[in-house]
Amino acid sequence: MARVVRNIPRAGADVIRRLGEAGVATVHEAQGRTGLMSAQMRPIQQDFGVAGSAITISAPPGDNWMIHVAIEQLREGDILVLATTAPCDMGYFGDLLATSAMARGCRAAVLDCGVRDVRDLRKMGFAVWSTAVSAQGTVKETPGSVNVPVVCAGAAVNAGDVIVADDDGVCVVSRADAEAVLAAAEKRIATEEDKRKRLSSGELGLDMYGMRQRLADKGLKYE
Amino acid sequence: MARVVRNIPRAGADVIRRLGEAGVATVHEAQGRTGLMSAQMRPIQQDFGVAGSAITISAPPGDNWMIHVAIEQLREGDILVLATTAPCDMGYFGDLLATSAMARGCRAAVLDCGVRDVRDLRKMGFAVWSTAVSAQGTVKETPGSVNVPVVCAGAAVNAGDVIVADDDGVCVVSRADAEAVLAAAEKRIATEEDKRKRLSSGELGLDMYGMRQRLADKGLKYE
Amino acid sequence: MARVVRNIPRAGADVIRRLGEAGVATVHEAQGRTGLMSAQMRPIQQDFGVAGSAITISAPPGDNWMIHVAIEQLREGDILVLATTAPCDMGYFGDLLATSAMARGCRAAVLDCGVRDVRDLRKMGFAVWSTAVSAQGTVKETPGSVNVPVVCAGAAVNAGDVIVADDDGVCVVSRADAEAVLAAAEKRIATEEDKRKRLSSGELGLDMYGMRQRLADKGLKYE
Amino acid sequence: MARVVRNIPRAGADVIRRLGEAGVATVHEAQGRTGLMSAQMRPIQQDFGVAGSAITISAPPGDNWMIHVAIEQLREGDILVLATTAPCDMGYFGDLLATSAMARGCRAAVLDCGVRDVRDLRKMGFAVWSTAVSAQGTVKETPGSVNVPVVCAGAAVNAGDVIVADDDGVCVVSRADAEAVLAAAEKRIATEEDKRKRLSSGELGLDMYGMRQRLADKGLKYE
Amino acid sequence: MARVVRNIPRAGADVIRRLGEAGVATVHEAQGRTGLMSAQMRPIQQDFGVAGSAITISAPPGDNWMIHVAIEQLREGDILVLATTAPCDMGYFGDLLATSAMARGCRAAVLDCGVRDVRDLRKMGFAVWSTAVSAQGTVKETPGSVNVPVVCAGAAVNAGDVIVADDDGVCVVSRADAEAVLAAAEKRIATEEDKRKRLSSGELGLDMYGMRQRLADKGLKYE
Amino acid sequence: MARVVRNIPRAGADVIRRLGEAGVATVHEAQGRTGLMSAQMRPIQQDFGVAGSAITISAPPGDNWMIHVAIEQLREGDILVLATTAPCDMGYFGDLLATSAMARGCRAAVLDCGVRDVRDLRKMGFAVWSTAVSAQGTVKETPGSVNVPVVCAGAAVNAGDVIVADDDGVCVVSRADAEAVLAAAEKRIATEEDKRKRLSSGELGLDMYGMRQRLADKGLKYE
Repeated sequence: MARVVRNIPRAGADVIRRLGEAGVATVHEAQGRTGLMSAQMRPIQQDFGVAGSAITISAPPGDNWMIHVAIEQLREGDILVLATTAPCDMGYFGDLLATSAMARGCRAAVLDCGVRDVRDLRKMGFAVWSTAVSAQGTVKETPGSVNVPVVCAGAAVNAGDVIVADDDGVCVVSRADAEAVLAAAEKRIATEEDKRKRLSSGELGLDMYGMRQRLADKGLKYE
Repeated sequence: MARVVRNIPRAGADVIRRLGEAGVATVHEAQGRTGLMSAQMRPIQQDFGVAGSAITISAPPGDNWMIHVAIEQLREGDILVLATTAPCDMGYFGDLLATSAMARGCRAAVLDCGVRDVRDLRKMGFAVWSTAVSAQGTVKETPGSVNVPVVCAGAAVNAGDVIVADDDGVCVVSRADAEAVLAAAEKRIATEEDKRKRLSSGELGLDMYGMRQRLADKGLKYE
Repeated sequence: MARVVRNIPRAGADVIRRLGEAGVATVHEAQGRTGLMSAQMRPIQQDFGVAGSAITISAPPGDNWMIHVAIEQLREGDILVLATTAPCDMGYFGDLLATSAMARGCRAAVLDCGVRDVRDLRKMGFAVWSTAVSAQGTVKETPGSVNVPVVCAGAAVNAGDVIVADDDGVCVVSRADAEAVLAAAEKRIATEEDKRKRLSSGELGLDMYGMRQRLADKGLKYE
Repeated sequence: MARVVRNIPRAGADVIRRLGEAGVATVHEAQGRTGLMSAQMRPIQQDFGVAGSAITISAPPGDNWMIHVAIEQLREGDILVLATTAPCDMGYFGDLLATSAMARGCRAAVLDCGVRDVRDLRKMGFAVWSTAVSAQGTVKETPGSVNVPVVCAGAAVNAGDVIVADDDGVCVVSRADAEAVLAAAEKRIATEEDKRKRLSSGELGLDMYGMRQRLADKGLKYE
Repeated sequence: MARVVRNIPRAGADVIRRLGEAGVATVHEAQGRTGLMSAQMRPIQQDFGVAGSAITISAPPGDNWMIHVAIEQLREGDILVLATTAPCDMGYFGDLLATSAMARGCRAAVLDCGVRDVRDLRKMGFAVWSTAVSAQGTVKETPGSVNVPVVCAGAAVNAGDVIVADDDGVCVVSRADAEAVLAAAEKRIATEEDKRKRLSSGELGLDMYGMRQRLADKGLKYE
Repeated sequence: MARVVRNIPRAGADVIRRLGEAGVATVHEAQGRTGLMSAQMRPIQQDFGVAGSAITISAPPGDNWMIHVAIEQLREGDILVLATTAPCDMGYFGDLLATSAMARGCRAAVLDCGVRDVRDLRKMGFAVWSTAVSAQGTVKETPGSVNVPVVCAGAAVNAGDVIVADDDGVCVVSRADAEAVLAAAEKRIATEEDKRKRLSSGELGLDMYGMRQRLADKGLKYE
């Protein structure tokens, strides 16, 4: 069942870039609160956000062989997304693999496993979200698959989906929905700007959103 | 049972400020090693400490409605303390709520749940301690309570208690005990300064604290 | 059974220094992927690496008495390694103990428990890897042992073993093997430099390592 | 601050017994979904429920001394409730302590720590809910307190509160509210019996609770 | 986006029954080691296995409303499979819902959340696999969806997929693959019977599988 | 570095049997509270205890090849002890391997990983302690070692050490100390019998152990 799907479709570069600017929290809201990876998926760097097309990897526990296979499939702006077939916190990815991925135009990886050489990766400007940091080495014995559907940190990902990642975590946007989600996200941003100003001036959410009556109806009492 | 208690008593501003300067580890010791939240309560920012009066929130899992209600009860220097009625790592709090809270003079929140927009929150200078970072959105369907007693990250908190928070975690000081705890904390600080000098000069704790005989009595052998 | 072993053997200073420069991931590989502590062992500081000789401590849960005993055994360049006899996330170590340890030439600690005063420790330049951050204080009632074999965060450590620690975690090198491991590590570094250049120029790992045939033999299919 | 409160008030024996018969899920609902301990609190026996008055213990990590002190305060039908001042999975309680507690009429313990001799305890008919099973022994060096307010597995408990425990977990009922909660619980049981019959006969909850319109109003679509 | 898909396709009853008899470990192997839920998914009963068609539920944290909606979609032999949109250990399911589900011919549920009334459920013969046991009640405020694709305990599930569950955990078989997987599973069982006899008679796996040479080739040394 | 040590020394059969009868809690106390595996190591069966000589296995994550190698080294009464070189919850061991091990006189395994076929194993009377239950299959690609020193669930184990396991967990007794530990354990049992009688008759531990004065000296107050 080990296989590599080539020539996957991707969303448009402009759509991807603007989804990245919208950020994880906004995009997640804009698409109906779906697609978020679990809170165990954390960045190794701080105050940085990015978006790209997913090159997915399904790898056995403790075996990072398929990352080499996946790198050949990378195009400028892609993001590696690695799921393991059983929970594993070993260090699948380090500075040599990042060097190779960067040579193909990849600048980020999302790993449901461990990462190593994190100091070097930060220096190189290669961004990583992972569920662990670990120097533990892996083997290259059992093939997995590239660009097949995976479940990564609790979220279903298809090859070519848009990955949005920042300090809040990682969100997956279905490629087919990317434009619609972007439109909803940018609309949301516009609305939020107005709310921010009003809240900043001291207006209460209770009033701005007209919540007082509904709270009273649901039984809230003031003492 | 959903209710809001208004006009809670608070400790004096000077006492609160000085408890913040003493810091979590010292205050925790000074009050007999009680009131510490669990080690899962971590800051989103680094090298920063604060103290304030607790505005407590008891919220259902996945429902952040009561934060809006709590914000109306905030006064300058207060800290929002949110407990959920069941474990939940969703992102209850983000930049819009922080904007609203800051407009009322609040500069920090302690959340036994997730927080989102953490990059924005750091930029805004709004400090947060939480048990998770997550973009996952919440609903506004079920009222909870504000300024009732809660258990937050394993510590009992009453409205108006003094919250001390820094890189070591979060400690709760009962409002009634605040002055006595401060006195004990400042006494402790004075004593520690002398110890620090002696240890720094090379004197051993074994000698400074006179531990050698007691260790021998308890059976410690040197080989 | 409480005992202190004095005058433990140590590896040579030059070997230790160069193992520290090689870093955790390389050293761990060079010694056959053994000796790594678990991924729960995390640094309180960022982008810093060190190596030193282990002064081991076996301490009861919630009791940090033996750290004072261990400090007397420290020599320039040593690293304190504390294991508890049952899991415990309390704050065994803080700025006073670090002051005392620094006065004896120690600059780092590896703690399978909590640490406190982390902001002060970062300011002082004392490096710590721990499995928790917690202000929770400990007692001094029950002796443990110093410089006996311990299991720390899943790794066996003997007094005088070389501890290598950086942002990837902590690795233990048996004192007897230190020179051989260093030789293997430095050889590895030399080899990696060449690989890094080739990968950086766009050569694929698939070709550089000659993996294509073996992958095909194991059944990998391209679609 | 180590202290023992004697002569605590208790709820009536009949109220306690009937709360035990109502069971954890019903009692928890009847008192507005408060007072439940966390899901980590699990029984060592199966298919057994009980209720009793709480004798509370606040104990240091790794130190079970106060259980001996608490046993003297036990009366027929009481339940020992132990909270630690920091997380600890050591085996605080075993067959000798159970023998002593049973001699005073106690038949159950709720422990936010480990328990040991679980096979013997099951044979003796002494029921235990705990957050761990562990043979790890504790010391008797540091006093704690008995019958003071504690937070046990996330729930606040006062001495004399009614503890209800079964296969679903452990729930705390405030002594002052015990009669009112019992009334609500028994009313709930009566209502549930009717619902059970209707559901058993094939009537749908959608119809029995009249949910269809409200679901449609909230946007649910059938395809 | 809240929706209910009706009239889903199912695999044949005989195929489902025989997959249940093959059991989780065998089925998981037979389909190439995919589809297994995480090890946190545990049964509340012992020594029992079952298989059925998945009626999937996507529910918000702390809200079990959609279970009522799903029950209407049940047919004889179906299994309820509930995924939450964020991690939640609350008690979504208890004896009343089980009564209603059993009236529709459902005998099991797989819940990525908590379950309650476990003693009653065992008595009723309703089987449950869940990631927690908790009496904590939920609300009915926010619709989710029924029979949409979900990720449950790390495994992707589509409505009508075959769920195989026993003491080893829970495995998902795609409806389209069910017959092929069954064939592979039954072939595997036949083969295993022969191996079991040979191993039972004392033949070593090293010899039966011809492993000695390959181990030597990979460098294994005997001392 | 993959190697198998043959002809390991073992403790005497009578000593091993009597250590098993003494049980984990007693043996752990008798040897100074050392050697206990972590509380995550749980039995798949209930109310059963055993002791045997350790055949140790160091295995890569997700690779159970070395169990076949270890089985050849088994003698009557031995216990397989498997440690992984990185945390792994996959199902390394099932009914076929148990069949093979039983044919060599082995009746138990202690696994710092997952186990599968647990219902079959219980039927066969093969006892297992493990840190997970999982059907997830492993590969046979990378050799590890047999009868080398390992760290299993936090405890150091050497080949030939005595493993004592029951419902309280698993404890390791160094082969060299086995007779002395047995003597201490049996002495402890004799003493406990007398204590049990006195406590059973209502005598308090406070009096039997003479604790009242020491508690008062340490500051315990009665109110």
